[in-house]
Amino acid sequence: MPKQVDHHERREAIAGALWRIVDQQGWARATMREVAREAGVSLGQLQHYFSSRAEMLAFAMEYASQQTRARVERGLAELDHPPHPRDVLRLVLTEMLPLRPEARATSRMNAAYVLEAMHDPALKRQVGTGLRDGRSMVERLIRQALDEGHIPPGRDPGVETDLLLALTGLATLLELDVVEPQAALRAVDQHLDRLFGPPS
Amino acid sequence: MPKQVDHHERREAIAGALWRIVDQQGWARATMREVAREAGVSLGQLQHYFSSRAEMLAFAMEYASQQTRARVERGLAELDHPPHPRDVLRLVLTEMLPLRPEARATSRMNAAYVLEAMHDPALKRQVGTGLRDGRSMVERLIRQALDEGHIPPGRDPGVETDLLLALTGLATLLELDVVEPQAALRAVDQHLDRLFGPPS
Repeated sequence: MPKQVDHHERREAIAGALWRIVDQQGWARATMREVAREAGVSLGQLQHYFSSRAEMLAFAMEYASQQTRARVERGLAELDHPPHPRDVLRLVLTEMLPLRPEARATSRMNAAYVLEAMHDPALKRQVGTGLRDGRSMVERLIRQALDEGHIPPGRDPGVETDLLLALTGLATLLELDVVEPQAALRAVDQHLDRLFGPPS
Repeated sequence: MPKQVDHHERREAIAGALWRIVDQQGWARATMREVAREAGVSLGQLQHYFSSRAEMLAFAMEYASQQTRARVERGLAELDHPPHPRDVLRLVLTEMLPLRPEARATSRMNAAYVLEAMHDPALKRQVGTGLRDGRSMVERLIRQALDEGHIPPGRDPGVETDLLLALTGLATLLELDVVEPQAALRAVDQHLDRLFGPPS
């Protein structure tokens, strides 16, 4: 390894190590010491990049969000052009659920992050901003689908946005084997059918 | 304090102490040592009741579930007799959301517990069993409402049950101020309107 290691690259490697620990062993195990060990750096080196566990977590979540956005982008590229708004919303929602290993890691990171954020004002601002941005993006998609007549008139875009985001509650049910992946997808499709009307 | 302290009572006092710490400071702070301090017992005394943090958490969750059931029971007593199934489902769902301080504590306990359960097979069995029991109860209510004609025929009770439980995803959105309590209730009502048809 060259002496001059790329700062950004090493931060990403550390985020990856944190991510593996959270996915496989849980958030409680993700101490600074354990993450340093997994990333193959000393505790001092780790502290050079992140002064606290909360700071490390904030970076790892930003990284996880980037990964989710990249998965959504790849999914969008596979849809019709222009894509049907139902397909776009389905993609955004299902990429937030632990239906595949990649999305499972993000979902677990997210659960840990949300729990920590409830009691950490700085994290709460960060995650709140991220979620409100996500909410605005979904609301824009729903307003556009209403304007273009894909969604029957009279639906309240704010309420429909909250309902759609509420379905991320399926993540917990999936993680704990209360709901099977196929059943989660049926529930999502049932909800979208009711929002858009059945596919034409 | 008499020497002979009621075992059950002290366990409940310890669960209460754990619960306050989780509500106010977060799960990461709820170590055995911190809970002993908050409950006013020695670490040795605490270990006499709970041999591990996971065991203490399992008991506290059972206690939180009892509190939730008690709140639902009290709410049921205030409904018409016989209650409309829509009102029953609305009560069950809203008592799972952090809309009031009491329910907020339960909801935070639950989030911590679920996160821990993802990586602890014994906890996962316990929480999974609890959630599957809850799911069965909701499905029975929906089947009965279908049989009695409150819900339009042709709805799939399994899918409708999963969709209703998925709305517990509102808990996170409420905790992080992404959705306001009134908006969460509007979303719940919109969903129930669509399931039952508008109130007659």
